[in-house]
Amino acid sequence: MTSPSLLPEGLRDRLPPEAEALGRVRGAVLTTTELNGYARVEPPLAEFETTLLGRLKSSRGTDLLRVIDPISQRTLALRPDITAQVGRIAATRLAHRARPLRLCYAGQVLKVRGTQLRPEREMCQAGAEIVGTDAVPAVIEAVRVALDALAAAGATGLSVDLTLPDLVATLAAGPMPVADVDAVIHELDGKDAGALAALGATAYLPLIEAAGPVDAAIERLSAIDSGGILASRLAGARAIADAIGGRATVTLDPTERHGFEYQSWIGFSLFADGVRGEVGRGGAYSIVHPDGREEPAVGFSIYLDPIVDAGVAPHGRDRVFLPLGTEGQVAGTLHAQGHATVAALSDADDAAALGCTHIWAGGALQPL
Amino acid sequence: MTSPSLLPEGLRDRLPPEAEALGRVRGAVLTTTELNGYARVEPPLAEFETTLLGRLKSSRGTDLLRVIDPISQRTLALRPDITAQVGRIAATRLAHRARPLRLCYAGQVLKVRGTQLRPEREMCQAGAEIVGTDAVPAVIEAVRVALDALAAAGATGLSVDLTLPDLVATLAAGPMPVADVDAVIHELDGKDAGALAALGATAYLPLIEAAGPVDAAIERLSAIDSGGILASRLAGARAIADAIGGRATVTLDPTERHGFEYQSWIGFSLFADGVRGEVGRGGAYSIVHPDGREEPAVGFSIYLDPIVDAGVAPHGRDRVFLPLGTEGQVAGTLHAQGHATVAALSDADDAAALGCTHIWAGGALQPL
Repeated sequence: MTSPSLLPEGLRDRLPPEAEALGRVRGAVLTTTELNGYARVEPPLAEFETTLLGRLKSSRGTDLLRVIDPISQRTLALRPDITAQVGRIAATRLAHRARPLRLCYAGQVLKVRGTQLRPEREMCQAGAEIVGTDAVPAVIEAVRVALDALAAAGATGLSVDLTLPDLVATLAAGPMPVADVDAVIHELDGKDAGALAALGATAYLPLIEAAGPVDAAIERLSAIDSGGILASRLAGARAIADAIGGRATVTLDPTERHGFEYQSWIGFSLFADGVRGEVGRGGAYSIVHPDGREEPAVGFSIYLDPIVDAGVAPHGRDRVFLPLGTEGQVAGTLHAQGHATVAALSDADDAAALGCTHIWAGGALQPL
Repeated sequence: MTSPSLLPEGLRDRLPPEAEALGRVRGAVLTTTELNGYARVEPPLAEFETTLLGRLKSSRGTDLLRVIDPISQRTLALRPDITAQVGRIAATRLAHRARPLRLCYAGQVLKVRGTQLRPEREMCQAGAEIVGTDAVPAVIEAVRVALDALAAAGATGLSVDLTLPDLVATLAAGPMPVADVDAVIHELDGKDAGALAALGATAYLPLIEAAGPVDAAIERLSAIDSGGILASRLAGARAIADAIGGRATVTLDPTERHGFEYQSWIGFSLFADGVRGEVGRGGAYSIVHPDGREEPAVGFSIYLDPIVDAGVAPHGRDRVFLPLGTEGQVAGTLHAQGHATVAALSDADDAAALGCTHIWAGGALQPL
């Protein structure tokens, strides 16, 4: 017999006050994206496994939790990510809308297994996408809105780590040819200088050295970019860094690929003080339309649970105990001031035990 | 090959502006419950099938969508309802918290099949529960908060239909014995006078007649309550009707049982102008603790999608187009005033096509 309180591994109840903090973080991120003109979409929790797999940026079908659907007699899958669903919407039902199309979302995602850093299998993901352009102004807007959203959610000490996901492929197709591009990408991602040398790719060693604060990194990359093939990418990274430099620490790791396999010219990871691991990520990518046409896009995702777990979410409301006999209009007045009220239902109700911070007494708020 | 835009039956994308309307309705309901002292809980989307089934108010296992979990090697079920999860939390992890314990929630629920009236299989459910009492003041608070939440969500023309779920069982155990109580309950629910007579339950016929406006209904029920066994229930219904009469039309249908099988002394359905079918429901019930102890509770659920579909949700923000070159601080000023902004990313961006209501020009808002 399963204990009635036992939940499956990686699934959990958010209790007060954490559930409220999650709600505030979610609200703060959504409000920030909506204020910046991103229109909300709300895709379903499950889709046909085949259509979801076809759009996922990784085609790791083993990551999907599958649902048996007696109605369609087909296998559904719970979404492990919302970005792919937003791409589907942009490429189908909203294909006719004017570009740049700005969309935002927040919702639960589920996967088969968590990670060592984050064992949860259900998470709340929020984010925003600009569809129709991945030019520098769009990337700047995406990073700025992400930073605004994180700040509104209570995160501080923000930093942005830029990466150039197609850098190696670009160099390999141009001035720095190698036999096995994928192997070079793999070893650079692992920052393994010995393995690189063994691949005959010593020309790529300076890329490992280039990682660090954005100014120095761009300088080092410019030095090895004899043919100027990286010039537009580096100018773009420079413009992005300049635009957000006052808001966040900016670094550049030109060879970081992990998790950016489907990004095009630029990707970014977001970090915040006190939050373990990444708090969000984003970058430029392509949306594939049903007719095969590819459309540039840029966006970001934020995982809200780590912000809640870090305890940095904005504070909740005061809770004011209203003793029996309190006039009816008092609650409304206090609500308008942003206070929560807890009305006594009987003489036995205990304001302190009920978590109240104040009591209404003598026609005024009294701290408890 | 499945069309990439095809979704399983009963699952849908909410697009702008409906997805935003859903967000506003959700926010309005949650804010109302939080302002009234209800602490937020956020249970997981899936649980072990066995624990979820054990707590569901109906044990209709055929309503559950099942998930294959390779990690636990067990069957999980997606929640078709959140109330049962809140009951689980109140009876286990929050069993030690002071009563009355006020909890609220909002989240997605999924079921195998929709209804004719509402074919959707995924819905957003929100609600609130008071655990520890089902006395009249608690029921009044639950109905009032439900009405406040609906009003905040934009619903108008509210009405409350009260029912007395254990009425027949109470009468049958007392002054009006019958051979087959369940059959009488069934025929009363169907308002089938002929079938009642055939059951030898003609004494119950006046209950059918009693349904209607609350004053007349209570009067008729009092007339047949010779032994006074209904006195406390009728006084309770009277007090509830008096407390909310200025806010909503109140009716009483003493024999309505459909969907109230697990309610105890009182249940209520909520209706709003322009919304098809019930917009919410609630009532008194019992939460079962792991040691078998039963604890009284009262609460309500609101289904948010019908409110959105009825088009009554509060209006969204103005969208202000910011041409290239707009000073950086303008966006923040407009956001603080509650306006959304849409920043031009290139000269080609078209304010009207992007759905903007205003444009920033000459240092001021101009309507488009």
